[in-house]
Amino acid sequence: MAYVESGEFTRDQRYIATRITADGRDGFPVEAGRYRLVVSRACPWANRAIIVRRLLGLEDALSMGVCGPTHDERSWTFDLDPGGRDPVLGIERLQEAFFERYPDYDKGITVPAIVDVPTGAVVTNDFARITVDLSLEWTAFHREGAPDLYPSSLRDEIDEVNEVVYADVNNGVYRAGFAGSQEAYEEAYDRLFRRLDRLSERLGSRRYLVGDTITEADVRLFTTLARFDAVYHGHFKCNRHKLTEMPVLWAYARDLFQTPGFGDTIDFTHIKRHYYEVHRDINPAGIVPAGPDLSGWLTPHGREALGGRPFGDGTPPASEPVQQFA
Amino acid sequence: MAYVESGEFTRDQRYIATRITADGRDGFPVEAGRYRLVVSRACPWANRAIIVRRLLGLEDALSMGVCGPTHDERSWTFDLDPGGRDPVLGIERLQEAFFERYPDYDKGITVPAIVDVPTGAVVTNDFARITVDLSLEWTAFHREGAPDLYPSSLRDEIDEVNEVVYADVNNGVYRAGFAGSQEAYEEAYDRLFRRLDRLSERLGSRRYLVGDTITEADVRLFTTLARFDAVYHGHFKCNRHKLTEMPVLWAYARDLFQTPGFGDTIDFTHIKRHYYEVHRDINPAGIVPAGPDLSGWLTPHGREALGGRPFGDGTPPASEPVQQFA
Repeated sequence: MAYVESGEFTRDQRYIATRITADGRDGFPVEAGRYRLVVSRACPWANRAIIVRRLLGLEDALSMGVCGPTHDERSWTFDLDPGGRDPVLGIERLQEAFFERYPDYDKGITVPAIVDVPTGAVVTNDFARITVDLSLEWTAFHREGAPDLYPSSLRDEIDEVNEVVYADVNNGVYRAGFAGSQEAYEEAYDRLFRRLDRLSERLGSRRYLVGDTITEADVRLFTTLARFDAVYHGHFKCNRHKLTEMPVLWAYARDLFQTPGFGDTIDFTHIKRHYYEVHRDINPAGIVPAGPDLSGWLTPHGREALGGRPFGDGTPPASEPVQQFA
Repeated sequence: MAYVESGEFTRDQRYIATRITADGRDGFPVEAGRYRLVVSRACPWANRAIIVRRLLGLEDALSMGVCGPTHDERSWTFDLDPGGRDPVLGIERLQEAFFERYPDYDKGITVPAIVDVPTGAVVTNDFARITVDLSLEWTAFHREGAPDLYPSSLRDEIDEVNEVVYADVNNGVYRAGFAGSQEAYEEAYDRLFRRLDRLSERLGSRRYLVGDTITEADVRLFTTLARFDAVYHGHFKCNRHKLTEMPVLWAYARDLFQTPGFGDTIDFTHIKRHYYEVHRDINPAGIVPAGPDLSGWLTPHGREALGGRPFGDGTPPASEPVQQFA
């Protein structure tokens, strides 16, 4: 994180941009069993990759290591695993895989990261690229019936939506929450809710953001909406309304939540613990709110009436129970 | 404020207990023009006194000084007044009136406080007693049509309601917000919402808490409910639901808000600024949330259908505009 003089939060976007591609042009060809996706269920950026991996059925080709919800200043850790080590990579801290790649690495240790298992070195942590590459480069390992989340005919429109959703919503909530001045906060808050109002209008008459099926654009908006009331509303002061008070977005988010591959990737306990325990600069005592009441996520949403074909010509992934309400 | 070992917040309740009475037995007889009520519009305890003074029509007999919404470690200050001095008391900081009474005063400088104007010394800051004494001791100066807020026939029931509302709600939100441990917080949160659920049941079939008219009990619950979504929901992590999501309490609070003497005493800007700017231990950057949307306070509440006689055999005070929405 960095702050400019105005008190505005700016995200360090210098990610490791090496790509894993079908043709292996960066030295890392797509291969089943070679890489490990490292995530935290708390993190919205990692959540995108977890969802896309599920939707595309890449579980067998690309294994997944899950860090605990909290981390110290240095790194995400594998504290959920027996002995505190990732069973495949054999490391305690994700930092080790970054240092394996660059011994002098001094930027953020972030999830999602994809690690090359044989060398133990991070290949990429470029979250925006990772999900698109899972769609476009890993096709050889997609399950039968995998949806096309980034169809070429809609790509421009998806990119356009993603750009404003990133700036105003995905990163907008952080810009509000980490603002160093009242002015910077209010600017971020205004942009966020203006954008949410426009998205409500857009989604009032169509089931998904782009086209009539679930795309990468929906995945990206969903991971922020899923965290909205649990964290961003209070912790980041994004409190004009709760998600539950924005009827169109709330129904849209519930529709996705109840779609296999979305809600079953969400762990509200991890989400709340992460933000409230880690950001001691915002929440010094580290106390985690007991609310909000989350039972509404499984209520009927009525969005089927808008039509749409969630998986297009494909099929949903196999159902998994929604852990949070089990 | 004080903390016991468990991390539980306990309010210092050693107030200056001298009373201003009709018979003057503590040396301070009720007299028109002699005393000055010092408040902040931010403070829920002071808000009680502002409301009761309005309902009883004591404005001419008991003048009021208003401190700004924020204060430093030492004292509330008269920073809203020209030159930063209360025009009647001539002081800059409420602390001065406490020292005038006790030069070694080392407890909290709190509002509401009633100051004896001739000597400039605080008579009392015992907020729970102040409103009751305005009702019972200041009768000679009540306006014509003043309601009986503490009728003798209902006093036991009012006291009983006040006791649990104080412990679980009025002070309960502070116990949640200032908890020093997760356990202490969760205990306060559970007690708060359990009590709010019971109050919802009680108020589902009756317009007011005790009897069929507004009483001291309603005044005390109202000042916490008025601050619930603006402050306690986020800042104090009382976030199972917003007030707006608890239909009975929300309608009850709106009904009172729209009653002359209640909503016209509320300044949401002062309320938000106070909590978010002063409690740097909870909100280090001091940024004040732009939300929530407060426009719902003036919407129809439908509580007239429950009957009730708001002012009993009396009449409402003269209407004043609700500042916040002017």
